[in-house]
Amino acid sequence: MNLKQSIRESINTKKEDYIQLLQKIIQQPSTTGNELEAQNLVAERLKNLGLDVDVWIPDSEKLKESTFFNPRRDNYEDSPNVVGTLKGKENGRSLILNGHIDVVPAGDESKWTNNPYSGKVIDGKLYGRGATDMKGGNMSTLIALETIIDLGLELKGDVIYESVIEEETGGAGTLAAIQRGYKADIALIPEPSEMKIFPKQQGSLWFDISVKGVSAHGGTRYEGVNAIEKGWVVFQEIMNLEKKRNKPLREDPLYRDNPIPIPINIGQFNGGYFPSAVPEDATIQGRYGVAPGETIEEAKEEFQSMLDNLKSIDEWFDLHPATVKWGGIHLPPGGCDLDHPMLEILKTKYFEVEQEEAIIAGSTWGTDGGLLTQAGGIPSIIFGPGTTSMAHYTDEYVELEKMFKTAEITALSIIEWCEIAEKN
Amino acid sequence: MNLKQSIRESINTKKEDYIQLLQKIIQQPSTTGNELEAQNLVAERLKNLGLDVDVWIPDSEKLKESTFFNPRRDNYEDSPNVVGTLKGKENGRSLILNGHIDVVPAGDESKWTNNPYSGKVIDGKLYGRGATDMKGGNMSTLIALETIIDLGLELKGDVIYESVIEEETGGAGTLAAIQRGYKADIALIPEPSEMKIFPKQQGSLWFDISVKGVSAHGGTRYEGVNAIEKGWVVFQEIMNLEKKRNKPLREDPLYRDNPIPIPINIGQFNGGYFPSAVPEDATIQGRYGVAPGETIEEAKEEFQSMLDNLKSIDEWFDLHPATVKWGGIHLPPGGCDLDHPMLEILKTKYFEVEQEEAIIAGSTWGTDGGLLTQAGGIPSIIFGPGTTSMAHYTDEYVELEKMFKTAEITALSIIEWCEIAEKN
Repeated sequence: MNLKQSIRESINTKKEDYIQLLQKIIQQPSTTGNELEAQNLVAERLKNLGLDVDVWIPDSEKLKESTFFNPRRDNYEDSPNVVGTLKGKENGRSLILNGHIDVVPAGDESKWTNNPYSGKVIDGKLYGRGATDMKGGNMSTLIALETIIDLGLELKGDVIYESVIEEETGGAGTLAAIQRGYKADIALIPEPSEMKIFPKQQGSLWFDISVKGVSAHGGTRYEGVNAIEKGWVVFQEIMNLEKKRNKPLREDPLYRDNPIPIPINIGQFNGGYFPSAVPEDATIQGRYGVAPGETIEEAKEEFQSMLDNLKSIDEWFDLHPATVKWGGIHLPPGGCDLDHPMLEILKTKYFEVEQEEAIIAGSTWGTDGGLLTQAGGIPSIIFGPGTTSMAHYTDEYVELEKMFKTAEITALSIIEWCEIAEKN
Repeated sequence: MNLKQSIRESINTKKEDYIQLLQKIIQQPSTTGNELEAQNLVAERLKNLGLDVDVWIPDSEKLKESTFFNPRRDNYEDSPNVVGTLKGKENGRSLILNGHIDVVPAGDESKWTNNPYSGKVIDGKLYGRGATDMKGGNMSTLIALETIIDLGLELKGDVIYESVIEEETGGAGTLAAIQRGYKADIALIPEPSEMKIFPKQQGSLWFDISVKGVSAHGGTRYEGVNAIEKGWVVFQEIMNLEKKRNKPLREDPLYRDNPIPIPINIGQFNGGYFPSAVPEDATIQGRYGVAPGETIEEAKEEFQSMLDNLKSIDEWFDLHPATVKWGGIHLPPGGCDLDHPMLEILKTKYFEVEQEEAIIAGSTWGTDGGLLTQAGGIPSIIFGPGTTSMAHYTDEYVELEKMFKTAEITALSIIEWCEIAEKN
């Protein structure tokens, strides 16, 4: 029996066990600040595998030393990072398997068919907030690692399994892991790429725009200026900026099949505080895609120019400029060279398992890959089983067969990259 | 010395006392649910005047019996109504002086020059939330009543002084006073009319519209439908409805000088819950003016037609209709006949004091007058000192001279209406 068959068989015999573990992890609603219980489950599993397991509370003072940090909170007490290391025997090529444990909120729970944290399996899909983004992905890399251990294979290089906090709201977890000294020659991140391979990942920034109006009684509303109406002017200009910024990416082979390669998503719009008063304030919050190859500073400058130009569209903004604060998610773009050997390995192993060519593309969202690449100097590739469109979505699910296939391809790729130690 | 001179002199000698009382009342931030302390001050003053004072907690079960009630809460424990009655001696024409003690929230307190509840007097203006809407108005009617008592005048008809709760958020206070049996031949309400006389008052309804989108990850936002964008379609149609509804009022002599006689104010717009998710919900809240002579039902029907028509503008609304709930403020239009004798008295007394013709107009906002007229069968007239544009506004103030002039005109009008008892 060859290696590929052994790996598949090993995975097949433990499928129920893996599904149950994923269910348990999904049943922990690990939104920002609430990662502890889910992390405990991961740490316990890694310990049982015999790995060196490192569990620590990120230190916000230390994080603040990095220019890549955007503070969301001062206290990480219930948000430990977990890293398990499978030490290589011969100083071979090393690899990080990075994935975030935090999930976005469930939104309107009444819209979910089942409880958002049910973990129910129906027709081969496992449901729950985080199933696709990205607990199902984390499970695929964990299965890959566990399978290598189960098969008694010893590798030349280290495999570092990182279960990090707070990707969805800032990237503090991965940054803390970099600061703690975790380095490798390549990082794989099983974000929900639908088994596409992303050697380029766009960056992502969160903006928070403040728009001014003038308050008045609703009965004499003509004496005020409705901040919601002014906010709508800003909304439209943001959409025009998105069009402008996406034009050049139409030429990029990694992005040209994507309707909006670097989207600007307006996720929140809030104006006013009382039905019968004219709103004097409105805020617009959203995420801003940073193109691979673009710096965060360049992206921010273009955004600021758009705001500065508002006064040429509506003179109101001349004396009442819309202002922006950058906070929360602050992920630089990441990736690896297109001739990186790990990219070739992944493509080959994908073909071996799937009997078809892998799709190579660029991510439409920011990931911790940008931090690994820019703050950690570690090239990064996204390859995960989740359904992109289900991320942050009602009735989020992961297809279990894709999770197991991803695990198989990942195990084969790890072995090829880190190589089996001579003494095996 | 004639009556007019006596009244003016009596007011003049007590100006400082009245200003101090108004300051104390304004220093109590009597937003909905927090009316108790301000009401205690009013009740104490009325008792000191020797009136029969009735202080009671409105009963939400009783309120629910009325079709005019729109419940905001179940418990009125810290929100008593206060009514003081000056009994007439000879069953003459009676009069209610109605005013609400509740104020709207201060909004962004940092924008206020002084604390929003300072009660500071600068250049003849007394500042603070509620100064114009309508604690300054309530003070003008209290001064009128107190002056009549100070002068030892006994009247033929009853004067009922009502300090009611919750006008700003529903009208429960006035409705409770009607249910408790307080009736009169006419009601005066010193809402901030800038000393204009309003024999017609428009009604006011609060709407709460729900708009649907489809959630998605911000990175693939093209897979979702942004509820904020759909909300903007609704926003524009509301503004078109406002134009349509205001056209006929351009012919009405009471309203033709007003830029928007029956305004629709959009006071709140909220969509989304996370910067990097496509918003699946948006809500639009505001107040909807009801024309004098229009029923609440007719006004609601026209609003619903506008919502039903959205699908002809954007087919999204065909399968995802915007829905409306009516709640909070629910004030029918009110007023009196244009040949009502009290209207004539007010005009005459205004001319006697001000030496110019009073302006007769229609209110641009709903008041408790609608409830008095429609639920209580009591014709109502608005006449108050406050500056309309300062209601619900930062740095709200009342001009003290206007407050005292209004008190003088009101005292003369009360005496003419209720008549001095024979035995005086």
